[in-house]
Amino acid sequence: MKIDGTHYRSIWLGDDQKTVKIIEQRLLPHELKVVELKSREDAAVAIKDMWVRGAPLIGATAAYGMALAMANDPSDQNLDASWEILNETRPTAINLRWALDRAKAHLSAIAPAERAAAAYKLAAEICDEDVEINRAIGQNGLKLIEEIAAKKAPGETINILTHCNAGWLATVDWGTATSPIYHAVEKGLKVHVWVDETRPRNQGAQLTSWEMASHGVPHTLIVDNAGGHLMQHGQVDLVIVGTDRTTAQGDVCNKIGTYLKALAAKDNNVPFYVALPSPTIDWTVNDGVKEIPIEERDGREVTHVYGKLENGERDWVQISPDATPGGNPAFDVTPARLITGLITERGVCAASSEGLKSLFPEQE
Amino acid sequence: MKIDGTHYRSIWLGDDQKTVKIIEQRLLPHELKVVELKSREDAAVAIKDMWVRGAPLIGATAAYGMALAMANDPSDQNLDASWEILNETRPTAINLRWALDRAKAHLSAIAPAERAAAAYKLAAEICDEDVEINRAIGQNGLKLIEEIAAKKAPGETINILTHCNAGWLATVDWGTATSPIYHAVEKGLKVHVWVDETRPRNQGAQLTSWEMASHGVPHTLIVDNAGGHLMQHGQVDLVIVGTDRTTAQGDVCNKIGTYLKALAAKDNNVPFYVALPSPTIDWTVNDGVKEIPIEERDGREVTHVYGKLENGERDWVQISPDATPGGNPAFDVTPARLITGLITERGVCAASSEGLKSLFPEQE
Repeated sequence: MKIDGTHYRSIWLGDDQKTVKIIEQRLLPHELKVVELKSREDAAVAIKDMWVRGAPLIGATAAYGMALAMANDPSDQNLDASWEILNETRPTAINLRWALDRAKAHLSAIAPAERAAAAYKLAAEICDEDVEINRAIGQNGLKLIEEIAAKKAPGETINILTHCNAGWLATVDWGTATSPIYHAVEKGLKVHVWVDETRPRNQGAQLTSWEMASHGVPHTLIVDNAGGHLMQHGQVDLVIVGTDRTTAQGDVCNKIGTYLKALAAKDNNVPFYVALPSPTIDWTVNDGVKEIPIEERDGREVTHVYGKLENGERDWVQISPDATPGGNPAFDVTPARLITGLITERGVCAASSEGLKSLFPEQE
Repeated sequence: MKIDGTHYRSIWLGDDQKTVKIIEQRLLPHELKVVELKSREDAAVAIKDMWVRGAPLIGATAAYGMALAMANDPSDQNLDASWEILNETRPTAINLRWALDRAKAHLSAIAPAERAAAAYKLAAEICDEDVEINRAIGQNGLKLIEEIAAKKAPGETINILTHCNAGWLATVDWGTATSPIYHAVEKGLKVHVWVDETRPRNQGAQLTSWEMASHGVPHTLIVDNAGGHLMQHGQVDLVIVGTDRTTAQGDVCNKIGTYLKALAAKDNNVPFYVALPSPTIDWTVNDGVKEIPIEERDGREVTHVYGKLENGERDWVQISPDATPGGNPAFDVTPARLITGLITERGVCAASSEGLKSLFPEQE
């Protein structure tokens, strides 16, 4: 999407068609720094140290990491070693493993001399596929926004609430939850976005706000506590969130706090949609609350907050007493019964086994 | 309650029985500083600059402000002027006006020479009345905790979630929502408190955590997003919150985010109680969502977070882009239908007109 009028993807090639460029996302929203990845090691650091984040972007970066590796040494030995090194950067990232396996399988089958070009081509394909999936999600979600707009007076603002960052920064472009929003903006609909700050890591405040500000989408940052009140007072027309994992019955595991917004939406008859690329569906899991283990992260993320000081430097501030421990479950599960619908690249369906199978009949 | 083993109230007299002592609450949790108020002006600054906060404590400080004024000059003229000056410190604080009116009415009726002593006596009475109300709330709430304990295995932990700071720091002692907790601890019950950080102003992180740590109550600080997940997984036995305003039908206006916790409690069959001194009941209001205007505060409270840097200094950090505005509704309304019961100084009742009138029949 756009940064001050110029279109960007979250990963792209330099003019030499070899150097890989990314945004150092840890510096956002306070500084836009484009970093050049010139080696497999650069790519590994970018993933490991979270300069890039979001499953699709991690996968794309890993694919380009393989390309950088092959450009340096296309031997079988280096192919294996590069898979190992890149795979160790974020052990639990499913897209990382998926992209690396795909690259390794593809490249093993061709002659070393052709591997570099093939690896770059594959990485570009992986990026384009992600963009296409997210574009389709956006088109499908756009219809929902248009339906809401049709019920309003001409020019009346459509208020959309989102949680965390399921934005283009987490994908290659468009994002998932943000894609319908960007499509609506392109269509000329008058949209305003309520951005949940999304404690403890503030991805809403840091990333979604930055995306909206950079692309020129009217938005307001709110604390995670505020959404229920806004819904009670008719100030939210639609909620769209992303998901890290969707179960076969339509439960959704997403950033902590998503469940509370879904409850408030239900209580106030506000449509609550989840945008997802179909690879996030885990067909082996049904009851998300019972079956999905929730990562417990470092309590320091709760007791400390990162940001920019008045003098421009960035630092952490501690908000609680030294003696107080922080508890930090990173995700929660929103049961399907609270979800109005799932927005996928194939269309919108009910959050249920039947709904999902209507779009993905091959899973029967 | 206790600070590292020593019992404190939030306002008390020095050894000279004239100087008023308070805790400079803006420095909590990072520094415990006791401030001496030696004049009406000192008291006015303490209220205006929020060294003290919480309706009961503001009232008590205003009452002592009148005492300090009378000790200096007990004339009719100074009585009127002091009422004016103290009343201007926090124009919307109901307890402030109530305490000042009570003091003025009492003192006008007696001779100037007796006013200083009478004013000190009245301020002490106001404090003692507040302590007694909160003690009674705690006794009544304790029974609820004991009932939960009775259903658990001996020694099993009782997990209580609270939002914001309805603690002893906001009152003269005990607090409202915290009073049942402190009573349970005194009774030897094994209690653990989940403390919502309570963005944007972080009263949970800063004040409730500090109260718990200082008194020695096991507790864990969580982000406001986490409570729903904890309730889904049986990790919350009881929610107790305070209220700024309670309607005649039992709706509760409290710190933003309270409503979301009530929804989660309902969805998971977790008892959700509100602790309140009866003066917070506004018998003229019924439907809280429709009738109570919600204060919209400065967006900077959302975009910036205050805390302690590594070097011990305290400062604000900005968490969002410069171009992003913050929206900041300060309170929300929890409808009575989500509330298991109201804990008052007279007993526990249903959150309904009938429930409230059963305890307060004089309101019929």
